[in-house]
Amino acid sequence: MKITLEDIKKARKELQQYLAPSPMLFNSWLSESLGCEIYLKLENMQPIGSFKIRGATYKISRLSASQRKRGVIAASAGNHAQGVAWGARQLGASALIVMPTGAPIVKLQNTKALGAEVVLRGENYDQAYAIAREIAEKTNRVFVHAFEDEAVIAGQGTAGLEILEQLPDVDFVVGSVGGGGLMAGISTAIKVLKPKVQLVGCQSSGASSMIQSIRTGKAVKLESSHTFADGIAVIQASEKLRKILSSQIDHWVEVDEEAIAASILTLLEKAKILSEGAGAVAFAALEQLKTKIRGKKVVLIISGGNIDVNLLSRIIDLGLIRSGRRLRVNVLLSDRPGSLANLTRLIAKQGANILQAIHDRSEPFTKIDQTDVALTLETRGPDHSAAVIKALKTKVLRLELVH
Amino acid sequence: MKITLEDIKKARKELQQYLAPSPMLFNSWLSESLGCEIYLKLENMQPIGSFKIRGATYKISRLSASQRKRGVIAASAGNHAQGVAWGARQLGASALIVMPTGAPIVKLQNTKALGAEVVLRGENYDQAYAIAREIAEKTNRVFVHAFEDEAVIAGQGTAGLEILEQLPDVDFVVGSVGGGGLMAGISTAIKVLKPKVQLVGCQSSGASSMIQSIRTGKAVKLESSHTFADGIAVIQASEKLRKILSSQIDHWVEVDEEAIAASILTLLEKAKILSEGAGAVAFAALEQLKTKIRGKKVVLIISGGNIDVNLLSRIIDLGLIRSGRRLRVNVLLSDRPGSLANLTRLIAKQGANILQAIHDRSEPFTKIDQTDVALTLETRGPDHSAAVIKALKTKVLRLELVH
Repeated sequence: MKITLEDIKKARKELQQYLAPSPMLFNSWLSESLGCEIYLKLENMQPIGSFKIRGATYKISRLSASQRKRGVIAASAGNHAQGVAWGARQLGASALIVMPTGAPIVKLQNTKALGAEVVLRGENYDQAYAIAREIAEKTNRVFVHAFEDEAVIAGQGTAGLEILEQLPDVDFVVGSVGGGGLMAGISTAIKVLKPKVQLVGCQSSGASSMIQSIRTGKAVKLESSHTFADGIAVIQASEKLRKILSSQIDHWVEVDEEAIAASILTLLEKAKILSEGAGAVAFAALEQLKTKIRGKKVVLIISGGNIDVNLLSRIIDLGLIRSGRRLRVNVLLSDRPGSLANLTRLIAKQGANILQAIHDRSEPFTKIDQTDVALTLETRGPDHSAAVIKALKTKVLRLELVH
Repeated sequence: MKITLEDIKKARKELQQYLAPSPMLFNSWLSESLGCEIYLKLENMQPIGSFKIRGATYKISRLSASQRKRGVIAASAGNHAQGVAWGARQLGASALIVMPTGAPIVKLQNTKALGAEVVLRGENYDQAYAIAREIAEKTNRVFVHAFEDEAVIAGQGTAGLEILEQLPDVDFVVGSVGGGGLMAGISTAIKVLKPKVQLVGCQSSGASSMIQSIRTGKAVKLESSHTFADGIAVIQASEKLRKILSSQIDHWVEVDEEAIAASILTLLEKAKILSEGAGAVAFAALEQLKTKIRGKKVVLIISGGNIDVNLLSRIIDLGLIRSGRRLRVNVLLSDRPGSLANLTRLIAKQGANILQAIHDRSEPFTKIDQTDVALTLETRGPDHSAAVIKALKTKVLRLELVH
């Protein structure tokens, strides 16, 4: 498999009919706090909320009239599904998508809303993929692979051309890697046109199949993946992609789930954008690149924003706990009139807000003259939390921190 | 009070040194669903997350060297505070901000982080305002009013010039009104340059002081405000602003709190941006403008994005309930082995996800052979919710919908 700059330029020309360049925004807050210039390449603002629209649409645009008439098929748990559905609709092809049964309701609905037929089968991506291959065989539909496809990679690479136009003197481009199509395409464009630009590939440590493949020098298959960043949860790395990436990506960074959750929250609060886990990985990686990027111009590819809002709710909670702004404690009080009033007065005096207080006197495991209160508090940060804990300890019989 | 196009052009020239134009993005999903062209003017992506940076910075830039040396003072519960702090820092003035004691922790911290001194006094904006006026008197600091100030309004009006440059053939500009400075400035610029553009002012029905003032023909003071859109919770309307707005705003729209919450959620899910209540009001208003805007080019001013994430968490919940995607029911089961297992199996079969199930057998108010289960379910929408309820009713002793 070989993708050239010319392939990507051709894809660019074709895609211009369908897609405007995605925005790239300088962010002053992130820049100040990291001591460099941070630019966000907002693929989450694509019509389907993800960069996958590029590769899928370009792939379908290159099919012959008779191939398009046969229709396309793909396997995906989310963004590629929507990309294929969108591209097929634009180009008048029918699309059939196999999604694993546990796919998020929102992604399922969005794919259907774009006119694709959705079949829910298989317990994970790999099983859905196998089923889609079978159906493709039987129905003669054209299979659109999510990343192991030259046209798809050339399509994703068009983001690289846009980056160089939007910020010609960029120093670093940081993006996440699932299958690797995005960074393969982008790095191909950038390494030819501006070889000095440093490319950084990021993965969740719960699904680091490509990083392990790069390290060991051959494509790795994980036993399982453990990440809420479903967009980059790829178990079987592609050997073809490994070859491309191993020569074109300068740095690899693994980040943990908590850091990804905290990054989603930071991007929401400080950049006012919604990023899915796969998109926030690039920001999470900066923590490990701090000294390298100081004073440099850094482009973060926010690859997508299709996160289920129920999950987002939980991530906000997790992020607040991690950043020390939400405190959960269980305290034991003597069960006297006014003891709860004293407790809440103390908390108010400390300047913390009570988000939840569960005071359950029917709890059977405490002594008759004692009572448990489970508190969720909002604080200004770790120092404030520590001060609140210290103050509480002087007034309660026992205090347990809940993590 | 009189602001001219020339004043706004002068403000534009001055502010260009400090601020890049805020982005304006076409949104395909919102456009398709509303049958018009929707463009988002993203003031939430300003360095302080709100348009207030324009007016406050311009005001401070026009002060004499000796005035700047005396420092500035303002009263604000949030965004204007950050605007003044940011502008003062840029221009080397000291800033003192009076915030009401209940101001959100995040806004307090952000204002301090910009180098301003913050005094927490007064129970609401009006009290903080009176205290700030007193301190200004005593300390000789220059008072920077949040909206009743010609320089501040001229600064906000620069957003109007940008809109006409970014989308010359705009038909509608929709923005929220608190004090009214933003829409006064924008409408001044636009009504002179393109009188055919229709301007729409929006308020929350819980704090519609300006709409009531426009209707009655004189500035109204509300008894209180009831809105989580703190950025536009203005109790005392300004007569000066009323005069400007009454001749320049073509349509007024009032929206309720639920609609604002749902709009924050839609902007998050479909546009991938975070808007505060005051920013989402403009989108919420479209529901009432549907027929007017069909086929038109509509600019929504997303005035700010400084929303507390704890509040966001609650808004997501509220928005999901309102849009029929979250269902809360209490069901009564007979307390037999396997009854909970049967219940959860039924729910899974219906394709709903269980987000929370509280099964409390120690609940003292149910009969000995019965048990209560409080369920929070994720569904695909109102139709799906109705189907789930119908299926549940066939299997439980009693079902209560929780609103």
